[in-house]
Amino acid sequence: MIEEPRRARGDFAHFLEIVTRWADNDVYGHVNNATYYSYFDTLVNQMLIERNLLDPAKSASIGVVVETGCHFFASLSFPDVIDAGLRVSSIGNSSVRYEIALFRHGENEPAATGHFVHVYVDRATRRPVPVPAEVRAGLEPLIRAVT
Amino acid sequence: MIEEPRRARGDFAHFLEIVTRWADNDVYGHVNNATYYSYFDTLVNQMLIERNLLDPAKSASIGVVVETGCHFFASLSFPDVIDAGLRVSSIGNSSVRYEIALFRHGENEPAATGHFVHVYVDRATRRPVPVPAEVRAGLEPLIRAVT
Amino acid sequence: MIEEPRRARGDFAHFLEIVTRWADNDVYGHVNNATYYSYFDTLVNQMLIERNLLDPAKSASIGVVVETGCHFFASLSFPDVIDAGLRVSSIGNSSVRYEIALFRHGENEPAATGHFVHVYVDRATRRPVPVPAEVRAGLEPLIRAVT
Amino acid sequence: MIEEPRRARGDFAHFLEIVTRWADNDVYGHVNNATYYSYFDTLVNQMLIERNLLDPAKSASIGVVVETGCHFFASLSFPDVIDAGLRVSSIGNSSVRYEIALFRHGENEPAATGHFVHVYVDRATRRPVPVPAEVRAGLEPLIRAVT
Repeated sequence: MIEEPRRARGDFAHFLEIVTRWADNDVYGHVNNATYYSYFDTLVNQMLIERNLLDPAKSASIGVVVETGCHFFASLSFPDVIDAGLRVSSIGNSSVRYEIALFRHGENEPAATGHFVHVYVDRATRRPVPVPAEVRAGLEPLIRAVT
Repeated sequence: MIEEPRRARGDFAHFLEIVTRWADNDVYGHVNNATYYSYFDTLVNQMLIERNLLDPAKSASIGVVVETGCHFFASLSFPDVIDAGLRVSSIGNSSVRYEIALFRHGENEPAATGHFVHVYVDRATRRPVPVPAEVRAGLEPLIRAVT
Repeated sequence: MIEEPRRARGDFAHFLEIVTRWADNDVYGHVNNATYYSYFDTLVNQMLIERNLLDPAKSASIGVVVETGCHFFASLSFPDVIDAGLRVSSIGNSSVRYEIALFRHGENEPAATGHFVHVYVDRATRRPVPVPAEVRAGLEPLIRAVT
Repeated sequence: MIEEPRRARGDFAHFLEIVTRWADNDVYGHVNNATYYSYFDTLVNQMLIERNLLDPAKSASIGVVVETGCHFFASLSFPDVIDAGLRVSSIGNSSVRYEIALFRHGENEPAATGHFVHVYVDRATRRPVPVPAEVRAGLEPLIRAVT
């Protein structure tokens, strides 16, 4: 098991409030682990769309997910409100790596932390392309070097 | 096709804001039809929990869904904010029928309208039971007779 | 509540085996009602793709869902195997209406029955168009007039 | 990015066929990354249930997910049939670590590989407990030490 240090709110640069849904809970009465990744996806893409860095229907190059991971520390449930925090930890030639934490509303310790790696590809050929200049510029304010 | 009159916001007694997610969209770039029903589910159960009419883990009798339906008038998408409206149209011996409409934030015409019928059952035996008295009382303020 | 007669396997013209998933179950330990509609969607679109009546990425006109409904008679669960049955009950100028039943594997009484109405639209403008001739021809063998 | 060697079918000890669904695809026309984790969940729990190592409604101790991760090498889509392979890589005092690979039917190179870590907890208190002896014994045939 790889150690992933548990983060605080101050480590994150962008937040989105996510409200849980009935179907998020599984038979054990807590949010299903796969659903956390749909929160990650929503958080990253909402940020990209809001900052005009992505038009899912039209952008010539799009980020496809090549790696994700999550550590689950405490359960979330329906109904709950989650503060989902995001930071960019590195931007490579074609890839962007995000670090994410999910905080139950009002709590300082995350219920889960994870990472999410996009590789930019040409929409049509799906071959890797450099991270578009405007995406690189738009993401720079979200870079946090956390030790 | 059964005609279902398109409703206005004033026809509904309880509202919940629902924020769409990335995975709600299907390949056509709009919220998948099945996902509308997960909004219905979330709307009804959130209302029941908020009004102390349901504890999903402990209530002795629970509502199970016996019938649902939806008419889709306009597409919803990610990202979007939805005002989901609910009213109770009838309470029978064992059943409660809800009418629902989903309004894109700021619009007066619903994107979709539907219905949702709960039958109350004993949690253990799953046999129908009368609608609990406190549920009946708690839902009465949400009854709207709409012609 | 509109009466919908409970159907037998012989009323259906096309079948697909659907295997339930862990996340299909909700906190009550049974498949969530919204998930039944994702089975409907999968059944209809798998049939269209298999019969070369739809290419989700390229078809010039596509079916968008304008109405669905479901009656739930018995619960399904994970793990379960479902035989999902489909028939075409009517083809209009722009629309196709399907009737659907979900049978737990080996059972003759459906656990749920429902309907699903597609309206064909131009992919780009999303305006209604006539049901394409090849779709009309391809669906004809699935028409069952059931009284 | 942590290197995770791409596996072959022979590295896995248990297989489940998973059939994709319409709603698994996102706007880019491929299975959404979060959905891969619902395949993982289904694979692990189906195996546990099939081998009588879990009754989701009654087992006194249950596995809760504390860590998952996935590398995505090639896209999956609807319609597709997936051969999902599983092995146990380690069993600790309270935890079981699984390695997983998803192969498109008929292919030898996985489309995705991942891991999934269960910690056993008491169902009521949700406090960690030792892996039950029968689970430990039942999982032993699935241990594969892969270098």
